[in-house]
Amino acid sequence: MLKNGVFITFEGPDGAGKTTVLGEIVKRLEEKGVSVVATREPGGIRIAEKIRNVILDNEHQEMDSRTEALLYAAARRQHLAEKVLPALQEGKIVLCDRFVDSSLAYQGMGRGLGMDEVMSINAFAIDGTMPDLTIYFDITPEEGLQRIGKNEAREQNRLDNESMRFHKNVYEGYQKLLKQYPKRIISVDATKPLLEVTENVWKIISAQLNQE
Amino acid sequence: MLKNGVFITFEGPDGAGKTTVLGEIVKRLEEKGVSVVATREPGGIRIAEKIRNVILDNEHQEMDSRTEALLYAAARRQHLAEKVLPALQEGKIVLCDRFVDSSLAYQGMGRGLGMDEVMSINAFAIDGTMPDLTIYFDITPEEGLQRIGKNEAREQNRLDNESMRFHKNVYEGYQKLLKQYPKRIISVDATKPLLEVTENVWKIISAQLNQE
Repeated sequence: MLKNGVFITFEGPDGAGKTTVLGEIVKRLEEKGVSVVATREPGGIRIAEKIRNVILDNEHQEMDSRTEALLYAAARRQHLAEKVLPALQEGKIVLCDRFVDSSLAYQGMGRGLGMDEVMSINAFAIDGTMPDLTIYFDITPEEGLQRIGKNEAREQNRLDNESMRFHKNVYEGYQKLLKQYPKRIISVDATKPLLEVTENVWKIISAQLNQE
Repeated sequence: MLKNGVFITFEGPDGAGKTTVLGEIVKRLEEKGVSVVATREPGGIRIAEKIRNVILDNEHQEMDSRTEALLYAAARRQHLAEKVLPALQEGKIVLCDRFVDSSLAYQGMGRGLGMDEVMSINAFAIDGTMPDLTIYFDITPEEGLQRIGKNEAREQNRLDNESMRFHKNVYEGYQKLLKQYPKRIISVDATKPLLEVTENVWKIISAQLNQE
């Protein structure tokens, strides 16, 4: 299967500013006439939405962590197959808010399932489609969670109730990924003002697109 | 995690008589005072039921075959964690109508995803809990489907609409599994009258339980 577009993912903890910056980058790309698709799992894909509802239902306290990881992989697959791959095949730039690295950090490290184990099911889900570039928003769990607390508009779900220990493990997971994929993942300092973060992300993405 | 019970699975195409024979075996075991749990995925486990509903919804014609395989693995994990493992830990005999071999045959061979690939996500789901014994109900797809056609009480779902090619691939998948796991999987001739099949299955299971 030929892939002509460019696949860029945004990673990091909630509260790091990923979504806001992604929106800004989309605007700038569109101003330049670039054909861009901004998405995030489950991305309006009805099967992926239904899977997501099962994962995030506050009543599902009995959910096993392996079940959870498999459900994320299933939703990822459907979103990839229905939305990301067709856009890449049309030569578009796809910006995706979270992808496989989130599962490695959250389920692999956060839940303690092991990053290699979680990669095995995600390898099946993505079937070779890794991002061309990943922007990692670096911010400590303490500062990230503090920002979420201030944002009352954001809806709470089952995962917001996790302990600080969980979020610290996730952070450690991302640090490992940075070492494991030094070419693909580029870290930006997400504690800086959003305008500055946007500027840094814009430089990284522009450089990548000029390479392609 | 110590496992004290015995885990026995029933495999083969729909229409092979698995469910009827399983019910008979349960009766006989209970008459002997054996503590037995009869189950099948999703087994009344609410999270697994919800996953199953997503898989079997007749409207979901756009479902990608990898998504489907991941959802089966997710439902399997939850059913295993909530129902099978606790029963085995209590020393019970667990009889399960379909388990991991079904995914290997149906998704691996039937859908053409590859049996090793489908095993990789199921290995994550079962985390080492393979059946102690598997009874395979051997019947050709032609005869199996003919029996289903006669059973009008059975509810039709998305998977009943598959082609004969699909069912032949599934059959071939089971034949491969028989060669791959000659100790674990024992084949019975499911074209024989049900009473005779029950008798054969009873002998195999009795021998296994006397070994344990």
